[in-house]
Amino acid sequence: MAASAEQELGTQLNLKLDQNGLITAVTVDADTHQVLMVAFMNPAALEQTLKTRKCTYWSRSRQKFWVKGEESGNTQQVESVHIDCDQDAVIVKVRQRGAACHNGFASCFYREVVADEKGGLSLRIVAEPLMDPKQMYRK
Amino acid sequence: MAASAEQELGTQLNLKLDQNGLITAVTVDADTHQVLMVAFMNPAALEQTLKTRKCTYWSRSRQKFWVKGEESGNTQQVESVHIDCDQDAVIVKVRQRGAACHNGFASCFYREVVADEKGGLSLRIVAEPLMDPKQMYRK
Repeated sequence: MAASAEQELGTQLNLKLDQNGLITAVTVDADTHQVLMVAFMNPAALEQTLKTRKCTYWSRSRQKFWVKGEESGNTQQVESVHIDCDQDAVIVKVRQRGAACHNGFASCFYREVVADEKGGLSLRIVAEPLMDPKQMYRK
Repeated sequence: MAASAEQELGTQLNLKLDQNGLITAVTVDADTHQVLMVAFMNPAALEQTLKTRKCTYWSRSRQKFWVKGEESGNTQQVESVHIDCDQDAVIVKVRQRGAACHNGFASCFYREVVADEKGGLSLRIVAEPLMDPKQMYRK
């Protein structure tokens, strides 16, 4: 198989990292498929995620591993991980405990982008918080 | 509202662009919520997506707008766009015509990442192609 065909259709893991050494991780609810959040992983975070079954990201702001829920208790138990054709993004299917978003919403995507009559874009909140964020980080 | 609260909980669009001027776009099937693909948008691509209702990305490899399906015919009719808490990622809910993946699969995420007994990671194909990719680009 040619290198590009192997990358896209083969069975060998060969991550295509971005300029920061990361891939995109899209976390979805294993049952409903609702997208919960989008974050980043480096190769070690992906390995740890699969080994521990606790979803582990690379925090760009803190420059360290980020085991989801280690502060808030809102952990993500990993069911499976899927990778895309060019191997620069994964979907992580999880069982989410509590809210995935630090603002207390089930998903970080609680706002819709809408266009007004003049074509300008604004946001509309389309979900209710699941938890009080003030309570989430006071444990 | 403080600036960070407005960014995260307000109704004003204020995209947090990465070092390439882009946000992440996760495209999902509007009915099943299956994740179809992950790509990138710049602010103009997001505006065009909402204006035309045809999902439009920014191609990093070709450095130009990429109206999904303009070559293959496998277009994405946009139902709604949702944005995350820090405004650096969107979910685009679409009606997909044909296969989303250029390899002929319904979704680009047709491989699962699995660990072997020694902890090494490899890939397993877990979906069947929907279309013959050779036919998709011969129109």
